[in-house]
Amino acid sequence: MDNLHSSVPSGPPQQIGMVIYPKMTALDLIGPHTFLAGLMNVQVHLLWKAKELILSDSGVPIQATTAFAECPKNLDVLFVPGGTKGTVAIMNDSEVISFLADRGSRARYVTSVCTGSLVLGAAGLLKGYKATSHWYVRDLLPLLGTEPVAERVVIDRNRVTGAGVTSGIDFGLVLSSKMRDERFAQMQQLAYEYNPEPPFHAGTPQQAGPEIANHLRTMLAANHELAKEAAQQAQERLSKV
Amino acid sequence: MDNLHSSVPSGPPQQIGMVIYPKMTALDLIGPHTFLAGLMNVQVHLLWKAKELILSDSGVPIQATTAFAECPKNLDVLFVPGGTKGTVAIMNDSEVISFLADRGSRARYVTSVCTGSLVLGAAGLLKGYKATSHWYVRDLLPLLGTEPVAERVVIDRNRVTGAGVTSGIDFGLVLSSKMRDERFAQMQQLAYEYNPEPPFHAGTPQQAGPEIANHLRTMLAANHELAKEAAQQAQERLSKV
Repeated sequence: MDNLHSSVPSGPPQQIGMVIYPKMTALDLIGPHTFLAGLMNVQVHLLWKAKELILSDSGVPIQATTAFAECPKNLDVLFVPGGTKGTVAIMNDSEVISFLADRGSRARYVTSVCTGSLVLGAAGLLKGYKATSHWYVRDLLPLLGTEPVAERVVIDRNRVTGAGVTSGIDFGLVLSSKMRDERFAQMQQLAYEYNPEPPFHAGTPQQAGPEIANHLRTMLAANHELAKEAAQQAQERLSKV
Repeated sequence: MDNLHSSVPSGPPQQIGMVIYPKMTALDLIGPHTFLAGLMNVQVHLLWKAKELILSDSGVPIQATTAFAECPKNLDVLFVPGGTKGTVAIMNDSEVISFLADRGSRARYVTSVCTGSLVLGAAGLLKGYKATSHWYVRDLLPLLGTEPVAERVVIDRNRVTGAGVTSGIDFGLVLSSKMRDERFAQMQQLAYEYNPEPPFHAGTPQQAGPEIANHLRTMLAANHELAKEAAQQAQERLSKV
């Protein structure tokens, strides 16, 4: 391989830990996974409590490859995808939270896409950091001590967070360029033919307009409330530590 | 539910059949799956020879939900994702090809992303149609009687094909707007926050420039040759039918 791969470190593979969980959003995981698994000389772990099948919110059965207990102690990347009900369910799941707090305390990069940042926050990993999340819950980040930033990919020191779902592709390229270099990331962009052409202009509430945005906000209102309660509960728990 | 959902048909769920296979590219599947599973009143089948785990080319274990033999006879959508070695492996796999030829002969939409179009073509489903594929194998489509079109999503009658990997998101929105309507697809675009911001400008060979493009072409040359041989073998097989 020539100098386009010169940024790939030699030595033992870098360790990438990607948490999966019931009712996560599959695209939140698979977008970033595509780029991280393609970094070369990496070992990617799909992490859950046990090496079992989980079902995504859209019904994709994905199997964990590594149980929490078997996960390397020192990760180069810790990643958490988002979801709706499933995400709320793990925000105060002590087994998940203590795993994340531990690995996140030493990981080289602590990262998320979509509502995954609420889970990182519930583990105390975004306190004092800037971060983003899916637009519909970005307002909840301050409950976790986090300054919300309305950008697609937000980097604050070693925290790298992406906005909703499809941002995972932009996130993947940004993280790839940090872990390798820009030319390596550009090679990935071409390999995955990322030359987006959205057929519509509706990817933010402003672009979609009030009718569609309000409709979605209404559909998501109950889950926003559940996420808010979970964030408040996490805040209370964290304040006692 | 208000009129944003008025395009969702009542009655029995529409049947979406998405083929999965060993060494497929997971993002080729999960991009489109996100939008198709979100159409409401649909049943999505992840189809393979048996209800077993397959491993994507990046190492994601995904389980088939429906065996070929159990798949509904009449599908609203038949979809095939791409890959590299794994795709070549199924282009002349008689069990896969006869399943696709049968379901594809009656499906309302016959679709693919990335090199999945080579598999559709090997099943005789793109003969006389315009289609696209990943840029590195688009030149092979004529071997299967198909006119290659260098666009991100190509529609020719009921054939809808996407370009490489990440095009599956644009493909998903286009197909969603055809199966529902534009406002429904815009609601999905907002739900998945699809407001892409590629950090680089390298998503096509022209944009990436000759150094990166030639490097990737060299990396993929052996697989291009295998795909060409498989397409020629399929053409020979189809000419005898």
